[in-house]
Amino acid sequence: MKPLKSTAIVGIGQTEFSKQSGRSELQLAAEASLAAIRDAGLKPSDIDGMVTYVQDSNDELQLMRCLGIEQLRWTGRTPFGGGGSSAPVQLAASAVASGAARNVLIYRAFNERSGQRFGQPAPIHYGVGGGGAPARSLHFSYGLDTPAKIYALWYQPYMHRYGVTSEDLGRYVVVSRKHAATNPNAWFYDKPITLEDHQASRWIVEPMLRLLDCCQESDGGVALVVSSMERARDLRQKPVRVAAATQAHRMDGHIMFDYYRPDLVGYPEAYASAQELWTQSGLGPQDMDVAMIYENFSPVVLMTLEAHGFCKEGEAKDFIKSGAIELTGQLPVNPNGGLLGEGYIHGMNNITEAVRQLRGTAANQVADAENVLVTVGRSGLILQKA
Amino acid sequence: MKPLKSTAIVGIGQTEFSKQSGRSELQLAAEASLAAIRDAGLKPSDIDGMVTYVQDSNDELQLMRCLGIEQLRWTGRTPFGGGGSSAPVQLAASAVASGAARNVLIYRAFNERSGQRFGQPAPIHYGVGGGGAPARSLHFSYGLDTPAKIYALWYQPYMHRYGVTSEDLGRYVVVSRKHAATNPNAWFYDKPITLEDHQASRWIVEPMLRLLDCCQESDGGVALVVSSMERARDLRQKPVRVAAATQAHRMDGHIMFDYYRPDLVGYPEAYASAQELWTQSGLGPQDMDVAMIYENFSPVVLMTLEAHGFCKEGEAKDFIKSGAIELTGQLPVNPNGGLLGEGYIHGMNNITEAVRQLRGTAANQVADAENVLVTVGRSGLILQKA
Repeated sequence: MKPLKSTAIVGIGQTEFSKQSGRSELQLAAEASLAAIRDAGLKPSDIDGMVTYVQDSNDELQLMRCLGIEQLRWTGRTPFGGGGSSAPVQLAASAVASGAARNVLIYRAFNERSGQRFGQPAPIHYGVGGGGAPARSLHFSYGLDTPAKIYALWYQPYMHRYGVTSEDLGRYVVVSRKHAATNPNAWFYDKPITLEDHQASRWIVEPMLRLLDCCQESDGGVALVVSSMERARDLRQKPVRVAAATQAHRMDGHIMFDYYRPDLVGYPEAYASAQELWTQSGLGPQDMDVAMIYENFSPVVLMTLEAHGFCKEGEAKDFIKSGAIELTGQLPVNPNGGLLGEGYIHGMNNITEAVRQLRGTAANQVADAENVLVTVGRSGLILQKA
Repeated sequence: MKPLKSTAIVGIGQTEFSKQSGRSELQLAAEASLAAIRDAGLKPSDIDGMVTYVQDSNDELQLMRCLGIEQLRWTGRTPFGGGGSSAPVQLAASAVASGAARNVLIYRAFNERSGQRFGQPAPIHYGVGGGGAPARSLHFSYGLDTPAKIYALWYQPYMHRYGVTSEDLGRYVVVSRKHAATNPNAWFYDKPITLEDHQASRWIVEPMLRLLDCCQESDGGVALVVSSMERARDLRQKPVRVAAATQAHRMDGHIMFDYYRPDLVGYPEAYASAQELWTQSGLGPQDMDVAMIYENFSPVVLMTLEAHGFCKEGEAKDFIKSGAIELTGQLPVNPNGGLLGEGYIHGMNNITEAVRQLRGTAANQVADAENVLVTVGRSGLILQKA
């Protein structure tokens, strides 16, 4: 098999992350895409593949016309929303590794604060076109009409079993906001918080989630270009190798939560994803220099750390308390501030940060980063300095 | 590069094609999928990848539970509706060739006659989630509210330039219904028509499309399993090699029509797709033993034949009149009866027929078929006896 690791992320681009972009989602997609293509040292006409989320409103053909891409030989979309946020890289890498496309543009752009807000009660399916939407229909009629309510129910048994308190969660949030405070791209740039600020923020779903445990709603766009390692050597940037890429959807799961397993504690998809990433890459948790962990809400960071073997089950709260996830710690987590601190571009901005860390160009640079884990639990990547 | 041709279609399955299935779309997807998995000699737990259309209503997680698939490592969806109907095979083959998945299930199932009918005026986007939907919004307000109206406008300049008459179209339809008449899976089994029947059928969009020029609206499900050639040799069926697979989306196109090009005649995507398929496979039109051509409406068959070099521009009507597309002709076309004669499962039933032709198990078997073209113009495959 020609492995995915013959492929690389060769370009990244993004718009500003805001609460009101003042322009269309298509404009955001085009700006981020053009930036990524130029960053790679490519022209739009070099792009022959495209992938985005099923949910993205930006039509491939419209984006082609905006950018001047002449012909696409490969297109695909990924279901599961943020749960699939590593999947576009996996699909693009598959296309390139198999020869189906040469240079694949990945994009995700939305006005998720000034337009349709994910955090508000939604009478329609999100995840239209696959990826757990029917589960939402089942739960909606019981009042579970926002992600905060849906996910809090999943966090509760985990927090109960391991004695995780709101303060424990707050300690993660303080770190994410500390990182954001020194990242000029972050919405919460220069706005660090204290644990007291976290504890003073209002309950969204008591006793699991306070306001500051919730990711932002953001307007913005992010894009990446995936090409082969071979071509990457002739391009503008240091290539970032796709050392491993997987999705992990388990039979009893629903997007990122589950109410039906025999044991309601934990995140089986993340264990499965981690296992697959270690197998593909030949690496393990001890080899990761940075972890980019998708946090729609803070508790999932704890569960994801445990699932990937950075600490034992139930010990993530102590791992965080020890300072391990700080920039100078054993495993810096979300040096960009993550989705709580930097912005919520449906997880894609965690991939661009991983690339920056490996290029050595991040605002909060971790010294000598060689391997970065990017994960949302049910899809994940290991990116590597090539 | 590990080419797509290291992959094969190893299993096919389908439900009956009807006008009222009497069961849910999920049930149809599950029946077709289980049939395809069993046909391959695999178990549901062997499946670790899934792909369907963006538009498919069947959620991956629900289908996993129905079938007993334990874990998926790869999922994707394809935009462009029927225009992308060869794309799921391309994506699945990429996943397998790159090692991202071992055995990928492709499915498409709907109640497209008893449920939401594609042929009726639709106030909503079809192609939600990408693939030309915005174009539809632009044209809807001018009364172009059904595929027949939208596509007829595209056929008109072609028919005008080359003097293609309704009778010319009818000659294709007669052949498709002749093939369907001897295919027990076809809705129009045992119901051949004459050219007079075609000419007596009512106008849908005068002077381009009569009722019998339009594909069916069908209920049903179709599924395929893609694996590696290497594993295929240990499975139940003779493998069918994916000798080439591509999509071809051009900057000025819209799904399968276009109103904005300098020259409104013809189907540039189909020319681009053909070129890519010949390059990938090292084969040419003279090597094709059967052509499976997606026909939402009969005129596209003529344009597609020309784009693939089976005859010169403007000469498809004479090519058809000569008998070339009959079972014993130079290039048998749609021996299953196609989407007009067999059923409309969004193009997927043309892929299963290609597999049967290469296995030698088709109802209307073409002798010694070695290479089969499957195309919808803007996505295509060459399948090959391995």
